Amino acid sequence: MFREQIKVLDCTIRDGGLINNHYFTDDFVRAVYEALSRSGIDYMEFGYRSSRELYPPKDFGAWKYCDDEMIKKIIDGIESNIKISVMVDSYRVKEQVFAPADESPIDMFRAATYVKYMDSAIELIKKCHDLGYETTCNIMAISREMEPDLVEALDQLAKSPVDVVYVVDSFGAMYCEQVEYLIKLYREHLPGKEVGIHCHNQQQLAFANTIEGIIHNANYVDGSLYGIGRGPGNCCLELLMGFLKNPKFNLTPILKVIQDYMIPMGKEIEWGYLIPYMVTGILNEHPRTAIAYRQTEDRDKYAEFYEKMRETQE
Amino acid sequence: MFREQIKVLDCTIRDGGLINNHYFTDDFVRAVYEALSRSGIDYMEFGYRSSRELYPPKDFGAWKYCDDEMIKKIIDGIESNIKISVMVDSYRVKEQVFAPADESPIDMFRAATYVKYMDSAIELIKKCHDLGYETTCNIMAISREMEPDLVEALDQLAKSPVDVVYVVDSFGAMYCEQVEYLIKLYREHLPGKEVGIHCHNQQQLAFANTIEGIIHNANYVDGSLYGIGRGPGNCCLELLMGFLKNPKFNLTPILKVIQDYMIPMGKEIEWGYLIPYMVTGILNEHPRTAIAYRQTEDRDKYAEFYEKMRETQE
Repeated sequence: MFREQIKVLDCTIRDGGLINNHYFTDDFVRAVYEALSRSGIDYMEFGYRSSRELYPPKDFGAWKYCDDEMIKKIIDGIESNIKISVMVDSYRVKEQVFAPADESPIDMFRAATYVKYMDSAIELIKKCHDLGYETTCNIMAISREMEPDLVEALDQLAKSPVDVVYVVDSFGAMYCEQVEYLIKLYREHLPGKEVGIHCHNQQQLAFANTIEGIIHNANYVDGSLYGIGRGPGNCCLELLMGFLKNPKFNLTPILKVIQDYMIPMGKEIEWGYLIPYMVTGILNEHPRTAIAYRQTEDRDKYAEFYEKMRETQE
Repeated sequence: MFREQIKVLDCTIRDGGLINNHYFTDDFVRAVYEALSRSGIDYMEFGYRSSRELYPPKDFGAWKYCDDEMIKKIIDGIESNIKISVMVDSYRVKEQVFAPADESPIDMFRAATYVKYMDSAIELIKKCHDLGYETTCNIMAISREMEPDLVEALDQLAKSPVDVVYVVDSFGAMYCEQVEYLIKLYREHLPGKEVGIHCHNQQQLAFANTIEGIIHNANYVDGSLYGIGRGPGNCCLELLMGFLKNPKFNLTPILKVIQDYMIPMGKEIEWGYLIPYMVTGILNEHPRTAIAYRQTEDRDKYAEFYEKMRETQE
């Protein structure tokens, strides 16, 4: 019933960190690490490895940088088989230092990129691969790329040492038909590589589109606790576990950390299905306009927001 | 791009009424009727035609009965081409009176039933059909029926005058694969009939499963404003409109009625994605235990609820 090749990655701290500039308490990050470890999840993503020169530490919490020492401090003393991943915006790489994999708590680096920056992404992937890390490439915003450009990027990746290439629905604009099309396209152009899927929930389709990816043989799938993530958030990890039916999974610790941490957090910071995000999703726009709108007094003037957004497209 | 045969039905007042015993203000029902009419939605469902002997009026609002006169009062003076539907729990039919269709504001009766009560459902359907109404049969709880029983019911319906038969995911337990299977099964056994789909959102799949139904030629689809409905609620009408791309649709009045009415209402009554509903969904259970749990002080003890529910299944 379950497919053993499927690997589940939790991006709670990484994608959730986009809401609060990566300020999470050590207590929370530790609780997430412990719950994920006990639940049989395969990977936990802690955040970004960003350059302090580009992103000064006065403006961001620890998980903007994911220093090896900081991760070691969190995981110290917790029994776990979970692997640890960190994302790098590969088009904003400056003075980041990467230790050899066998000296680091990190197992995998995920290179986030746009199609146009594929050369720098591949450079980063090669560097990390040579240091002994697993690597992925997460190509963002593909719902607005021309297909020949995307295909060229995939063909470049096919020749690189990357392990996994992700279909990323940055704008939450895709329906199952687009997911099926893209997963098949990726698999066709990436022989011998694994394909992954990372969805957003603008249209309440993050979980459904992840299932669609799995059906068409994406084996790396992302979720987050109670769907936390920028704007509408991500596929809910708890839903994914229910679908996958891997006997190694244990849902109870996940539900416990949701009740103890995510529910109170939801009262402090906002994510999930809200009409302005839905509007940017159906219009295939970056959620930033909706996120900004939610900060204004007009936050619940949905009809007005929709009319304004439509005007910008016509 | 759009399929003209698709008919969209809004069940805001009917399914939403299950949360508050069908007490909605006339002002709200009128605002919904006006917004749906201006948006090009095909049907609006007002509630149930229930027996006052079985359900005494002291316990329920007007939309438990949907008297013709009450509907006429609401729609009076509003320009509209929308059709009106009313649901009947066909296994609880007592003294209900049905006027001939040409004397009633109602266009369609929907017979809700379980497989085991199919005979009485067909009796009701025949009666309504003979009075000149459009009719549907909404077979509930099919995720827990044995297939030969379901098929027998479909074969009976095939010989009845019913216009539309709905696949209903009462427990929000289905994934796209089950939806595809059932839609195909219904279509095979119901030559010449239309097939519809009505989904619930326990697992955030109501919209996605409705899309799946549409892909496999379900032409009658249900949604509700901001997904309102018992427990986790229904497929969001606003999402459905974005997907369908019918040029006759206008999303703005829908977003306006959501901002003006549904957002304030969401602070008074609860619906939407919540972990106890998700738990009953993945366990293929009726949501009633989760709804009851949300009324207790333990409402947010998710791990405990999950463990208890699992025990009842083992």
